[in-house]
Amino acid sequence: MHRLSLFAALLLSAASVVADPLPSWNNGDAKQAITRFVTDVTNAGGEDFVPAAERIAVFDNDGTLWVEQPLYTQLAFVLDRVQALAPAHPEWKEQQPFKAALEGDLATLGAAGREGLMQLLMATHAGMTSEEFSDIVTDWLSQARHPRFERPYTELVYQPMLELLAYLRANGFKTYIVSGGGVDFMRPWTERVYGIPPEQVVGSVIALKYEEREGAPALIREAEVAFVDDKAGKPVGIWRHIGRRPILAFGNSDGDLQMLEWTTAGAGRRLGLILHHDDAEREYAYDRKSHFGKLDKALDAAASEGWTVVSVQSDWNRVFPPTELPR
Amino acid sequence: MHRLSLFAALLLSAASVVADPLPSWNNGDAKQAITRFVTDVTNAGGEDFVPAAERIAVFDNDGTLWVEQPLYTQLAFVLDRVQALAPAHPEWKEQQPFKAALEGDLATLGAAGREGLMQLLMATHAGMTSEEFSDIVTDWLSQARHPRFERPYTELVYQPMLELLAYLRANGFKTYIVSGGGVDFMRPWTERVYGIPPEQVVGSVIALKYEEREGAPALIREAEVAFVDDKAGKPVGIWRHIGRRPILAFGNSDGDLQMLEWTTAGAGRRLGLILHHDDAEREYAYDRKSHFGKLDKALDAAASEGWTVVSVQSDWNRVFPPTELPR
Repeated sequence: MHRLSLFAALLLSAASVVADPLPSWNNGDAKQAITRFVTDVTNAGGEDFVPAAERIAVFDNDGTLWVEQPLYTQLAFVLDRVQALAPAHPEWKEQQPFKAALEGDLATLGAAGREGLMQLLMATHAGMTSEEFSDIVTDWLSQARHPRFERPYTELVYQPMLELLAYLRANGFKTYIVSGGGVDFMRPWTERVYGIPPEQVVGSVIALKYEEREGAPALIREAEVAFVDDKAGKPVGIWRHIGRRPILAFGNSDGDLQMLEWTTAGAGRRLGLILHHDDAEREYAYDRKSHFGKLDKALDAAASEGWTVVSVQSDWNRVFPPTELPR
Repeated sequence: MHRLSLFAALLLSAASVVADPLPSWNNGDAKQAITRFVTDVTNAGGEDFVPAAERIAVFDNDGTLWVEQPLYTQLAFVLDRVQALAPAHPEWKEQQPFKAALEGDLATLGAAGREGLMQLLMATHAGMTSEEFSDIVTDWLSQARHPRFERPYTELVYQPMLELLAYLRANGFKTYIVSGGGVDFMRPWTERVYGIPPEQVVGSVIALKYEEREGAPALIREAEVAFVDDKAGKPVGIWRHIGRRPILAFGNSDGDLQMLEWTTAGAGRRLGLILHHDDAEREYAYDRKSHFGKLDKALDAAASEGWTVVSVQSDWNRVFPPTELPR
């Protein structure tokens, strides 16, 4: 080998080590599908090139960017808020589903179904201004801890996904969250934690009423759901909010099926990804029969539609950010 | 004067001429209010400093960024679409409000009121996919001409506002449209014309249904209005879409009153602006009694709230972009 080429080879190898933008991803099919896709759509003059303005990537939140077991974080928030508000509502001690919520009786809560859940949601999410609610969420997140990992929920985000978000943005993508969760439950912290600003978070929406409150105009949260951003609602939410069809969609459950379908059915190069939780030791293992984040139809569709299934166990060499990270 | 300071003075004066980011604005109170505001909120360390991420500026569209007389452009589109679709609807010849629309009978149309308008809107805006509607709008705009100025509507945007949008963006602002008009009527062209991408356009929204169409998933526009982004709907639309309170709002009619109120009631430095159409020669003169873009309560509020009223006649030395501009 010539001295010059040896030097070049060393340089290249050093650069590839330094530059790996996805160090928490093992070098397997999933990582290669991602880097190949990004290389191709950013290759000016290549047949798959996509202008930066159209590089829209959408991510589910619960179970895709952060942990959704043993229950959705927003439900943990609801249960804690019912406790916090209980002194002002003595009637809740005898009234379902509040009684079950206060007693942590998840079986009764589950039996109360969607209607019971809506009662709890509205009792804890409505009646204040939009800005007051942001503060309540921020306060709660600063104190709440995950029951198994004993860390703040905002530290139980997936390190490989943080790297993927940053990698996409470094390649001119605009990264969006498209979640069934409440948009106002996510926006107070997504910029700090994911680098995704509030205006790039699409989610379910509560009715808002514009009115005077203490002499100043305010937006009051009303006890009515205005839009559910889940399942077939996800493509609708994307169109309403973004007005473009994404070229990359990443989800983990049947709630993401239509978002993945609609994204990957677009013309030109597209990438659909599904996170498969198969690592009970480092995180959780669940799919077809899970109560939260059920992955059944979308797992079957992945095979027929050519979506990339990402395995927590084999594709990720790290799940969560280091504990010592300042967050 | 030393040779060096003469040279420096010449340089400075040349720079200030070259660098005026708002050449179509006369040097009066309005221009000064704008440049002072931008200077102050971008002055790191100053008491009015606002981090770039929070520099959200919202603009009404009709009558603020482009002409809204003799009628809203979207209504001109509706009337043309009724003509185009009439051969497939022979019954419209006898059926109101379609008969009046076909005959250009604006008096009867006006008398048909909101209900009549909704019938025309739904007959022309629903039944196709979201992407098909974008193409219809784009085709129409390429052919339609304004009755008085005989130019494409997308050339009847205000040159001083194009300069203001660019000036704000150059200072780290994110510029948004917040319009009572249909979001899907604006998004196909706002990026090309204003430099505002589709995802930064907030507007009224039609119901969308996700379903298979010709073997592929699609979003079908349904004959139902899902959200009206006007008056008190504007702050609601802003919160839903952006999730932050803007620091600058620019409108021109009573439809913008609540957006201006809510924006300027926020903590810290804020700027509210109202465009007053008072130049019948170069554009139009209208305010308190106008059918389109009525400016009455908001004009009174401007005085009491300290909003800056911008006069087309005295604050702008040019109204429209030069004809020869390639658009």
